[in-house]
Amino acid sequence: MSQLEKIRHSLAHLLASSVMEFYPKAKLAIGPSIENGFYYDIELPKYFKAEDLQKIETRMKELIKENQNFVGKKVSKIVAKKLFKDSPYKLEIIKELEGKTVGTYQNGNFLDLCKGGHVENTKEINPNAFKLTKIAGAYWRGDEKNKMLTRIYGVAFETEKELNDYLKMQEEAEKRDHKKLGVSLDLFVFSELVGAGLPLWTPRGALVRNLLDEYVWSLRNKIGYEKVEIPHITKKELYETSGHWDKFKDELFRVKTREGHEFAMKPMNCPHHTQIYSRKQFSYRELPQRYANSTMCYRDEQTGELSGLSRVRAFTQDDAHVFCRFIQIKEELGNIWDKVVEPFYKSFGFKLQLRLSLHDPKNFKKYLGKKEQWLDAEQVLRELAKDRKTDFYEAIGEAAFYGPKLDFLATDSLGREWQVATIQLDMNQPERFDLYCIDEKGQKERIVMIHAAIMGSIERFMSILIEHTAGAFPLWLSPVQVSVIPISEKHLDYANKVKTTLEKENMRVELRSENETLGKKIREAEMQKIPYILIMGEKEIQANSVGVRQRSKGDLGQMSLESFSAKIKEEMENKK
Amino acid sequence: MSQLEKIRHSLAHLLASSVMEFYPKAKLAIGPSIENGFYYDIELPKYFKAEDLQKIETRMKELIKENQNFVGKKVSKIVAKKLFKDSPYKLEIIKELEGKTVGTYQNGNFLDLCKGGHVENTKEINPNAFKLTKIAGAYWRGDEKNKMLTRIYGVAFETEKELNDYLKMQEEAEKRDHKKLGVSLDLFVFSELVGAGLPLWTPRGALVRNLLDEYVWSLRNKIGYEKVEIPHITKKELYETSGHWDKFKDELFRVKTREGHEFAMKPMNCPHHTQIYSRKQFSYRELPQRYANSTMCYRDEQTGELSGLSRVRAFTQDDAHVFCRFIQIKEELGNIWDKVVEPFYKSFGFKLQLRLSLHDPKNFKKYLGKKEQWLDAEQVLRELAKDRKTDFYEAIGEAAFYGPKLDFLATDSLGREWQVATIQLDMNQPERFDLYCIDEKGQKERIVMIHAAIMGSIERFMSILIEHTAGAFPLWLSPVQVSVIPISEKHLDYANKVKTTLEKENMRVELRSENETLGKKIREAEMQKIPYILIMGEKEIQANSVGVRQRSKGDLGQMSLESFSAKIKEEMENKK
Repeated sequence: MSQLEKIRHSLAHLLASSVMEFYPKAKLAIGPSIENGFYYDIELPKYFKAEDLQKIETRMKELIKENQNFVGKKVSKIVAKKLFKDSPYKLEIIKELEGKTVGTYQNGNFLDLCKGGHVENTKEINPNAFKLTKIAGAYWRGDEKNKMLTRIYGVAFETEKELNDYLKMQEEAEKRDHKKLGVSLDLFVFSELVGAGLPLWTPRGALVRNLLDEYVWSLRNKIGYEKVEIPHITKKELYETSGHWDKFKDELFRVKTREGHEFAMKPMNCPHHTQIYSRKQFSYRELPQRYANSTMCYRDEQTGELSGLSRVRAFTQDDAHVFCRFIQIKEELGNIWDKVVEPFYKSFGFKLQLRLSLHDPKNFKKYLGKKEQWLDAEQVLRELAKDRKTDFYEAIGEAAFYGPKLDFLATDSLGREWQVATIQLDMNQPERFDLYCIDEKGQKERIVMIHAAIMGSIERFMSILIEHTAGAFPLWLSPVQVSVIPISEKHLDYANKVKTTLEKENMRVELRSENETLGKKIREAEMQKIPYILIMGEKEIQANSVGVRQRSKGDLGQMSLESFSAKIKEEMENKK
Repeated sequence: MSQLEKIRHSLAHLLASSVMEFYPKAKLAIGPSIENGFYYDIELPKYFKAEDLQKIETRMKELIKENQNFVGKKVSKIVAKKLFKDSPYKLEIIKELEGKTVGTYQNGNFLDLCKGGHVENTKEINPNAFKLTKIAGAYWRGDEKNKMLTRIYGVAFETEKELNDYLKMQEEAEKRDHKKLGVSLDLFVFSELVGAGLPLWTPRGALVRNLLDEYVWSLRNKIGYEKVEIPHITKKELYETSGHWDKFKDELFRVKTREGHEFAMKPMNCPHHTQIYSRKQFSYRELPQRYANSTMCYRDEQTGELSGLSRVRAFTQDDAHVFCRFIQIKEELGNIWDKVVEPFYKSFGFKLQLRLSLHDPKNFKKYLGKKEQWLDAEQVLRELAKDRKTDFYEAIGEAAFYGPKLDFLATDSLGREWQVATIQLDMNQPERFDLYCIDEKGQKERIVMIHAAIMGSIERFMSILIEHTAGAFPLWLSPVQVSVIPISEKHLDYANKVKTTLEKENMRVELRSENETLGKKIREAEMQKIPYILIMGEKEIQANSVGVRQRSKGDLGQMSLESFSAKIKEEMENKK
């Protein structure tokens, strides 16, 4: 265990220790270290409030300054049951532990059931480098049939600076929270009647989604992809053949028809696409067949797991499948990488890293296909990465059971890393669905499938992009690109003329004609993260110009309408 | 009953009479007149084949020439049971009939249970104006738990010419059958594994669908519509509020989540769209809100009802809903009609007729809303129709319970009439979902919804369009617009150059480079209904030209590539 983990784990004990001083009847459950900090689950009196955290934090700091030692001791289960008789949770744990003895740790007057991982003395903990952050409800053992306990969260680091940096980043992340920005920018909405995990897209949100989807398509179109379309349900038999019926059984939305047939809503699109491929017998000359299809998929996620756009029950995949010969995979993968994935993510300023997900040689039996083919395929992926001098690492055992993968990881403007595009080789479904082509000798040849979603889930990508840009989308993607603001009613005609002129050039323009102060109108347009605000009064009318304010750059001064129009046209064309 | 119906009904008796002569042990069920003809359901011996129809038809013609009288007679049920003791089906009908007596009809030696509707004498029947057409299986009383009977179909008219015209039309319709053309033009496919009523769209079919959808969108976009997007499932509560849970209960695909919640797959989009509208409070100044959304809907149709693309389990609606004030409906409806429905259908050469579907004043209680508002709304629709000097008729009682409708009927190239676009006023859902705007006085005002799907179901429209055009889509809609055919391998380079040149102008071009005769390549391109075929050999290379063949017009002679390119560009632009 690292020193930092030891600090965090020890703080969990100090937290419990302080809580017990204030609430002697509280019953402790468990308190581990976690990413960035620690928590403790406790059955607390009903009147406990988030405001009570401050006094507990203060008491923890006092305990740290007492230079308490952490002393471990093994005791028999019989003794342990007596020591922890006041907590039914601890007793339950003791009962389930293997062996005759259990571990305990003592600091000051506080004794906890614990197998260890602590600092030797609280001197090692910087009392200014931790903070209790929030309370939340948590079912004992995560099971909603059990009692709901109170989980007290803290964050902790080795230095005060690290704590402050973390808190600042958290604050920034909170401001950028896509769930809040989604509402304030009017991009999407959830409805009680429709249900959790099922976002509805407003005109602005739908526009952004469609522009993103069209951008991916414009890149794909250049390298020979064709759109296909499929129904969102299917007979059970399709997934029994593909193997998804078993593998996805918990997450599948199942439908029983009035005639008693079993259907399912599609959790992915590949099995449907195999049925388009197998409609006829292809010659090797007609391969690769490249099918693109942005379409909704469904997963029966548990309500507690849902979160904004990051985890939903219905999401849109910008999916594509390539049906090709094994000898074609290098060129196909290279094209997707160079001509779709790279330009797409770079255009938003994401830094891309590659994870090469390979099979585990110690456990080859869990993979489908011949070892030789796997090694060949993995070598192709490795060469691709090396050819491109990309920052990549190999992840043994991370391959899918049906083939190795290229997983792309994007780093956002807050330094957070997200797994985004994934390009997967699939040697399984061609086998299960008997997909082949006719080779040069007139013989059947088993083909390979490539799965190549670029955004993955458009919903999830939108959540990442909103937080990455704080809602300030690039010009081409902004739902409203230009806000036209007349200084007073007298200037409304001219403002309307400006709006019409820009709209003729396919710009998305709003006119703020409401009877408000100039300052308020500008502020509101800024809140909406509109890239350009054009202000116009007497002076501008005389000069046939507009006063230009650019998002984040501020006042650019007067500009003729032609110059402004030329400027943003150029900006649009240079999006990539 | 019309004379033609009497002829058809009498032919059903003659059919049964002839069958009984050949197969005395056959058991008769029922034999009504139907559209274009008649049928009889009969329990026949197993060895009965479609080929046996000829001898029966010949015998029917003989019976006609006997100038038989049709004589009706009422008999008691007791007598009837004796007369029809050989047929369990007739006995079942007798048992269920009300009253003490039942009707019978006698012609020649043949007696049938029948309440009448016959010619007086077979002289009235033209023996050359009918034909037995086919046999099919039919469950007794349409219930699959009952015995399967043989249904013998015939068509019948008053004159031989009418029969021949009908048969010719049928033959033409069969050639144009979208189910056959869908396969031969490679537009869509059904898969056993995915299931009946769930078409999969190939690259060519998906392209046509998308072009149609984009065309409707381009028309809508001009009159202020905005795209929205919605999930395909919802909690039960949405449809309980909208009233669809009850109304659509048999056709709803229901889904139970793993947590036990009841969900449904959407059978329509309006309830979801209300939830987008109600995300915020709109001022009257912001109305109308116009939401467009091409998205899939689902109906749990019975397998026996499914038919190609005409009746499916998952179909794509090019849906739109307008949320507006009552005073805005005339302008909104007028815009949809003039700027979307008319140009769309006229561009394919459909003749449009309008049905004005109004409430039934004798039964007003089944409609929602105030009578005055209904009368006002209907008057608006009537004025719209009159203003446009449109061919329309009023259909009393054909309104939806939530409002009156404009139903458009399109006549195709075979003279068949299809109900296509329908524009509906809805005063019900705004009530149920409490949809309003804030009026000039700051008060809440109940709004009105307009449902405005243009194609309705894209799948069904495709079936109509394929049969209307026999697969020969207009140039802008053809998946492949130009087929480039080099006379021999020597001309392949030039052919490639032609292809590349046209593709740069965004034409969809195929190159037939396979080693086949010129004649075969031309025939295949013609079979694919490709609008232009360009043939090139030595002569064309010398002249930097192409030999042009236009679909249905034939050879247009040599043309420079520039002239050809200009010609089709012009044709594309004049699509409307």
